[in-house]
Amino acid sequence: MKKIGFIGIGVMGGPMALNLMRAGYELTVYSRTRAKCEAVLSAGARWADSPAACAEGQDAVLTMVGFPKDVEQVYFGQSGIFASVRPGMLLIDLTTTSPKLSKRIFEEAKKRGADALDAPVSGGDTGAKAGTLAIMAGGEEAAFERARPILEAMGKNVVYEGPAGSGQHTKMANQIAIAGAVSGVCEAIAYGRAEGLDLERMLATISTGAAGSWQMTGNGPKMISGDFAPGFYIKHFIKDMRIAGEEAQDAGLSLAMLDRVLAMYRELDAQGLGDLGTQALIRYYDKQN
Amino acid sequence: MKKIGFIGIGVMGGPMALNLMRAGYELTVYSRTRAKCEAVLSAGARWADSPAACAEGQDAVLTMVGFPKDVEQVYFGQSGIFASVRPGMLLIDLTTTSPKLSKRIFEEAKKRGADALDAPVSGGDTGAKAGTLAIMAGGEEAAFERARPILEAMGKNVVYEGPAGSGQHTKMANQIAIAGAVSGVCEAIAYGRAEGLDLERMLATISTGAAGSWQMTGNGPKMISGDFAPGFYIKHFIKDMRIAGEEAQDAGLSLAMLDRVLAMYRELDAQGLGDLGTQALIRYYDKQN
Repeated sequence: MKKIGFIGIGVMGGPMALNLMRAGYELTVYSRTRAKCEAVLSAGARWADSPAACAEGQDAVLTMVGFPKDVEQVYFGQSGIFASVRPGMLLIDLTTTSPKLSKRIFEEAKKRGADALDAPVSGGDTGAKAGTLAIMAGGEEAAFERARPILEAMGKNVVYEGPAGSGQHTKMANQIAIAGAVSGVCEAIAYGRAEGLDLERMLATISTGAAGSWQMTGNGPKMISGDFAPGFYIKHFIKDMRIAGEEAQDAGLSLAMLDRVLAMYRELDAQGLGDLGTQALIRYYDKQN
Repeated sequence: MKKIGFIGIGVMGGPMALNLMRAGYELTVYSRTRAKCEAVLSAGARWADSPAACAEGQDAVLTMVGFPKDVEQVYFGQSGIFASVRPGMLLIDLTTTSPKLSKRIFEEAKKRGADALDAPVSGGDTGAKAGTLAIMAGGEEAAFERARPILEAMGKNVVYEGPAGSGQHTKMANQIAIAGAVSGVCEAIAYGRAEGLDLERMLATISTGAAGSWQMTGNGPKMISGDFAPGFYIKHFIKDMRIAGEEAQDAGLSLAMLDRVLAMYRELDAQGLGDLGTQALIRYYDKQN
């Protein structure tokens, strides 16, 4: 396990690839936009012209792309990863994507004598740079143990969650909990504003008790000051909530809060605000008072 | 400021009254059920036969009762507090109740040359016993400063929030944020259960990051184990959310998440589960899988 192909060099993938190189791995990279690869290439990574070329001859292939359709294209498309998969190869998808797609990749890898893990991350670009990401992995436990040194070069809280798809399901649970927390903070602030409270004081009072959350401490002040710079994009949150809602529905589960919050974010996206950070949910209540 | 009348000796009021006595105040108490007053009476408090008798001749009168109709009765009813209010007296309502009612009490007190504060608390019976409650107060700032030693005998995070009603509004914002957070934790757990995840492991993974909250850490494990013993009653949470929703509506604000979560809790209450703790929201999803 020395040679790694890394596909998807962006805000997250870039610093993760650099951390792998610092840990001594030999990297070959591919990304849709070559310009984004400058930092990793000048740090010594090799460039490949396609996912298939990037996967060719590697011990492990890691992917960190955007949407499920991108993951599908990168694995199953023409010149996709599966064109180059050999027995014993390890495939790790770090993208937050559909658990069903993760299971499909797992099955396809098995057929070829290879192992696949779904290993979505949380912690944002800050965590990616610092190498402190939480990584929640699904697949076979033996494959997870083989992957552990690679994952621990990028993250700190690296956990095996269960069979293929379990990493994605854990990430979905994470996003569902965020949907509740962030909407609670938003509606508390919208309420306080409508009632003329001193919002900083209000937030300081309530954030230390049973109403407290990472969302309140991290995003509450940004909602109050109107700082909507993206730590996490609305458009990506919508993707995650949509997948979670569909998976829940397939399991016969109706998540009323999640559906409501997803509908609010979709309205904002329809207004062209998808590139703002998730804290911009407060904009949903702006029009009301 | 030595003589205090305290009305409403229950799970919260009892330990709060005891803390005042420990701080050297002379207490007279009244409560609907005299049996609940045994601890404070044997600690040296005097008994009064009505709210009016309890308020008679006091420097300050504190109330900690259940619902807005109880507050109204205790202040404005026959043999209510206002029958005994004298100029200079300080009235402090610690109940979580309607901000409009707090303003009515404030105005009525003013007419009689007295001061009123709305000062709802958070921290539960644990905080009441330990004297570590958060207390969020509304009214005139000078009255708040006069009341501060009394409030600090019962709480730790004692904050002046603004004019009459602002304490209640801050508490409402607190409850709105809790509604979001607790529903997020519930739906994350219901989802993880439906997808067959190891729920303890899932919770341990997601609670340290952006999905983390007091509700997740405090109530998540209880939801998983089915421990529905009340830290905070569903029936009281419904009261609070109802007031918050009505106040928001009066201010022209629609809180979609809050409305949804309130509707879920009302369904549980209709099933006779109002005396369970708020973490029993997970029961709402039980029927689905």
